[in-house]
Amino acid sequence: MTYCVGILVQDGLVMVADTRTNAGVDNIATFRKLHNFEAPDRFISLATSGNLSITQTVLSMVRDGLEDPSTGRIDTIFNQETLFKVAQLVGRAVREVWRVDGAGLEEQGGRFDIQMMLGGQISGGPMRLFQIYSAGNFIEVAQETIFFQIGEHKYGKPILDRAMNFNTDAYDALKIALISMDSTMRSNLSVGMPLDMVFLRRGSVIPEINSRIDPGEPYFHDLRERWSAALRAAHMAIPRPPYGPR
Amino acid sequence: MTYCVGILVQDGLVMVADTRTNAGVDNIATFRKLHNFEAPDRFISLATSGNLSITQTVLSMVRDGLEDPSTGRIDTIFNQETLFKVAQLVGRAVREVWRVDGAGLEEQGGRFDIQMMLGGQISGGPMRLFQIYSAGNFIEVAQETIFFQIGEHKYGKPILDRAMNFNTDAYDALKIALISMDSTMRSNLSVGMPLDMVFLRRGSVIPEINSRIDPGEPYFHDLRERWSAALRAAHMAIPRPPYGPR
Repeated sequence: MTYCVGILVQDGLVMVADTRTNAGVDNIATFRKLHNFEAPDRFISLATSGNLSITQTVLSMVRDGLEDPSTGRIDTIFNQETLFKVAQLVGRAVREVWRVDGAGLEEQGGRFDIQMMLGGQISGGPMRLFQIYSAGNFIEVAQETIFFQIGEHKYGKPILDRAMNFNTDAYDALKIALISMDSTMRSNLSVGMPLDMVFLRRGSVIPEINSRIDPGEPYFHDLRERWSAALRAAHMAIPRPPYGPR
Repeated sequence: MTYCVGILVQDGLVMVADTRTNAGVDNIATFRKLHNFEAPDRFISLATSGNLSITQTVLSMVRDGLEDPSTGRIDTIFNQETLFKVAQLVGRAVREVWRVDGAGLEEQGGRFDIQMMLGGQISGGPMRLFQIYSAGNFIEVAQETIFFQIGEHKYGKPILDRAMNFNTDAYDALKIALISMDSTMRSNLSVGMPLDMVFLRRGSVIPEINSRIDPGEPYFHDLRERWSAALRAAHMAIPRPPYGPR
């Protein structure tokens, strides 16, 4: 399983992802799921969930290039003019993997099941955040719906729904994403540390944060403790139900 | 969809269920999902989720009776000596519905998919809480795992995981179940008011609480407001992440 959350606020783009993969509970591994593509004119982050063979192949394809059949040009994540075209390229790569591997995968009882989030900035263009599906189609965040989640999304959704809007400070948005990640890791063993995170300030192509939180990292440890204590205090401060015998 | 939670603490049994059913988003209705069976020697509550035609048929069967093929006796939820036997009877009823309706349902693309929780007390016996599956098999809570959820269980699970143990006061457990219900209703439109709830004190066969929370009910409205405010305050009290440029 996987949990990744991407948030686009006024300040910029926040993306956080776990790193645990599992092929059954007896086959746990750590793989990076937040993949950054850095160049002088762009910073793009692609978060992946679902079948690892599919997502790794898509990553190789968009890095190494796919030929555009109409022009013969090799399209890569580094030479697309806009983020929209990057999203289209990722979608094409997903469909190409489906064309090659889809039938074989399903014959063996596997499912062609992935989801991705694509966020970033190309110099001179708008900052954008997309969610990309198994069919290669995609949607984009809006001012009313500023975040996407992929993977195990339910446990961590209530705090995101309640606590954020487009004007939320980016560091608060990152904090809320980490709380959401904590709730998910507590409830689903297949989502786990370390965590990767990115904060890209709007207009910039150099991330302000691009780092990993390892187990025991002091701030995240403290956040988890404080959040637990605050939840306990929160429900204890609510009066007991007044209901009684009929 | 449905969300029901059942909790067995030292004090007794708490069960809460929503009442919304949907056959597609354009076909919403209200049906009771927390079904109480009351007699001088017992109080039993059966919470149902999944295909409504299956669960209603099971309810009719356990109320009206199923013949025991080995003795010829008509078994009902009212004449079983123990709650374990009641759970077995419900399981038999589920399998009987499967025998009659299962193939036809699947031929039409439907799924034989239900879950139930069975809790209660028969005079002189222990208080018990079971979860019953589509195959008619069942499991029981334990001191380490004091609650079950059926239906849309993920959104409301984090607060249950964190806030309760076997020694939690029953009214606090009910409060936490209502918070869990609130989180679920905010995130899934197919779980909705009114809510039904039961509290049966350990050793008793007369429920201390057996009532419905309608929209606008003052305590639950206040709980929702307080919980939202407390969550906001809780995440705002956590310091912002100290991470920055590499």
